[in-house]
Amino acid sequence: MSDLRKIILEENEIPEKWYNIQADMKNKPLPPLHPGTKEPIGPEDLAPLFPMELIKQEVSQEQWIEIPEEVREVYKMWRPTPMYRATNLEKVLDTPAKIYYKYEGVSPAGSHKPNTAVPQAYYNMKEGVHKLTTETGAGQWGSALAFACEKFGIDLEVYMVRISYEQKPYRKLLMNTWGADVYSSPTDKTQGGKSILEQDPNSPGSLGIAISEAVERAATSGGTKKYSLGSVLNHVLMHQTVIGLESIKQMEKADAFPDIVIAPLGGGSNFAGISFPYLHYKLTEGKDIRCIAVEPASCPKLTKGEFRYDFGDTVGLTPLLPMYTLGHTFVPEAIHAGGLRYHGASVLVSQLLKDGLVEASAIHQLECFKAGVMFANTEAILPAPEATHGIAQVIREANKAKEEGAEKTILFNLCGHGHFDMAAYQDYFDGKLEDHELTYDELHSGLNELTTPKIEE
Amino acid sequence: MSDLRKIILEENEIPEKWYNIQADMKNKPLPPLHPGTKEPIGPEDLAPLFPMELIKQEVSQEQWIEIPEEVREVYKMWRPTPMYRATNLEKVLDTPAKIYYKYEGVSPAGSHKPNTAVPQAYYNMKEGVHKLTTETGAGQWGSALAFACEKFGIDLEVYMVRISYEQKPYRKLLMNTWGADVYSSPTDKTQGGKSILEQDPNSPGSLGIAISEAVERAATSGGTKKYSLGSVLNHVLMHQTVIGLESIKQMEKADAFPDIVIAPLGGGSNFAGISFPYLHYKLTEGKDIRCIAVEPASCPKLTKGEFRYDFGDTVGLTPLLPMYTLGHTFVPEAIHAGGLRYHGASVLVSQLLKDGLVEASAIHQLECFKAGVMFANTEAILPAPEATHGIAQVIREANKAKEEGAEKTILFNLCGHGHFDMAAYQDYFDGKLEDHELTYDELHSGLNELTTPKIEE
Repeated sequence: MSDLRKIILEENEIPEKWYNIQADMKNKPLPPLHPGTKEPIGPEDLAPLFPMELIKQEVSQEQWIEIPEEVREVYKMWRPTPMYRATNLEKVLDTPAKIYYKYEGVSPAGSHKPNTAVPQAYYNMKEGVHKLTTETGAGQWGSALAFACEKFGIDLEVYMVRISYEQKPYRKLLMNTWGADVYSSPTDKTQGGKSILEQDPNSPGSLGIAISEAVERAATSGGTKKYSLGSVLNHVLMHQTVIGLESIKQMEKADAFPDIVIAPLGGGSNFAGISFPYLHYKLTEGKDIRCIAVEPASCPKLTKGEFRYDFGDTVGLTPLLPMYTLGHTFVPEAIHAGGLRYHGASVLVSQLLKDGLVEASAIHQLECFKAGVMFANTEAILPAPEATHGIAQVIREANKAKEEGAEKTILFNLCGHGHFDMAAYQDYFDGKLEDHELTYDELHSGLNELTTPKIEE
Repeated sequence: MSDLRKIILEENEIPEKWYNIQADMKNKPLPPLHPGTKEPIGPEDLAPLFPMELIKQEVSQEQWIEIPEEVREVYKMWRPTPMYRATNLEKVLDTPAKIYYKYEGVSPAGSHKPNTAVPQAYYNMKEGVHKLTTETGAGQWGSALAFACEKFGIDLEVYMVRISYEQKPYRKLLMNTWGADVYSSPTDKTQGGKSILEQDPNSPGSLGIAISEAVERAATSGGTKKYSLGSVLNHVLMHQTVIGLESIKQMEKADAFPDIVIAPLGGGSNFAGISFPYLHYKLTEGKDIRCIAVEPASCPKLTKGEFRYDFGDTVGLTPLLPMYTLGHTFVPEAIHAGGLRYHGASVLVSQLLKDGLVEASAIHQLECFKAGVMFANTEAILPAPEATHGIAQVIREANKAKEEGAEKTILFNLCGHGHFDMAAYQDYFDGKLEDHELTYDELHSGLNELTTPKIEE
């Protein structure tokens, strides 16, 4: 095995195709349903929101889909991203495991999100769209799309969850710098926002509400605006596979191959990005590889949710998707890992979990921040709060490998840096964070309200 | 010429030696003088503050000095850093110039500072030093040294300029995360600090005061603590030459060579890091290459200062250095580019400027922030306020090339990202920043007070 610490690729090694896992899945995901009729929807139902090329990708059964040259050209601004061997972390853990991480924090917006923001902006531009709407929680996605829209001359409206809008002025400023208009959600610009504000003028907002607002703005724009989503959907997950595809080449250079692949899961795009290209070998060749999605214990849809149809937003405007969910009205605690506070998981990851092809783990925030600080002290990168969930699981697996004396190779995706999340670390150091075990009632608060279709076993 | 956008190097291409420009200078720098006796000082005078290996490097006439394997091992955490062709910026400027930049913001602390922090911590560790003191202004240097000390098991005391301590809590937190103790300077822990506080209990502090405090703490520690400086000194500048040395290899890969090399100048280490390895060709082969140091118009020591002996700190504890200075009591405006608010320039850069081997340029902050936003919009990296000074000069040169129809190749060092400086951009967007032309009296406020030795022509 090579002893390289930093494994890099040349610009011409950026993948030329995305990997579409749908082609390899034996159990295909169930179709999305119309929110009104509850009947399976077709491409025409999605056309008001998305450009046709993305709708095609959403349902494509092609194994590989070509990355347009113009998209690869923008990817070159930060891709290929580096992969590192975490030798210092290994030493501190005194583990026989070899730990590698792919680092997506080198992107302009500081996370993996631009990998899909760029093609989404590109396909919209190609189809003559000049305006996009989107939502953002902590701001990672909003800033990624603002960057991408700036590249392709598209105006962007961002609905930013109010509590983040107030707590993270610099994320907002970053979006402004790239030319986006940012609104504190709920707003009075939409029916959905207005009705929330009528009930609670001080609503802190939520990702589900912000999605409702962004979708409504596009759907009622008379065709002048389309909508863009930063996770959950099949095409979004597919765009992220550049991460895993690059890492396979880097693993080859390091003369290694992972036994375990780990990433945090909010909607699923980060996890899919690193793991799907490895699952390809599991699905087609039966390769023995564990892929673990890590969620916060305060929003445990994978480990404690239900597999059924549910809405993607709070108001109920989106198609119904077959997924693991806590219910679209579930309101998780205001943990700092804002990107992981989403009630459902992507259809593809949900189906794979249901079929036993991937695993899930839920971890409390104190363990995660402790892992994040250990990582900063050993590997010197301060991880985003979301990313600390992956690191906490890596440490669990590395400790297990030590107990078992097993020479496991672990790969995880360090999806972003925490430079805009320092308040979270401040709270952690100040002892302001606590772990809270969800009660039965809290856990079922959203599920009990659901009237959406169940899925038969 | 290659059309690569991102030019990278493998880990084994990290330089094995630093370049020591002293070896190639025809006019050697004048010696430092003892602050009391005003006589040239020897190594033994510096021994209370620095480990012997760094003192040797400070006066070495060797052209190349080997980088210890342990230092290269830590460098591997982020080095080699990428070099980019700024194709988008070129397009917006519609210039025939080819613009390249080396990006040092990928380091753990987000700037070029760890390049010298790591060897300084290493040599101290090797000589049995367990405690270091230092100062920091905006926090770039303090966080770099905190990272490096953590790597080599050294305790660190940081004296942070009070106004930054209050305005940049996250920089402080980053230092704390890496285990450093950070104090708001002036403190009551030193005689220097106490006397400043007696005069003005609300003193916002300055880099000169913070240096006085850090030096005093080391000098009065009875040998238990040494002191570390992040710029100005010869050994510090030499450590930074890894930047330029890597960029030469990268330029070769791109089949290019710069006509103009540009970097901002605070103390001089950033400028030296990128330019000295190119000056090697100018000094030894007469190669025609322009190296331009860019300073803020509010602290114009290179363009409007005096070349004479002066102290490095406000109180007058350090040796007297022959340099371009505005006087050690000069207090520049509180511009956001905190790293450029220093009254003097390094001895080596000062001598080179005096000898006409490098150039200097002073630019007001509004032009710099405008350049920074243009850079963020085209190249997608949000530069540190210090770095925007280099970019503003790049734009000037690219526009000149356009006027002249000259196909110049320009290289600059993007020394750091602005993720911890968003308040500066907020002020810029809010229209709160103004340019102020220094009056004759303001400009001479520090120089008029100087009683330090002049240098004969």
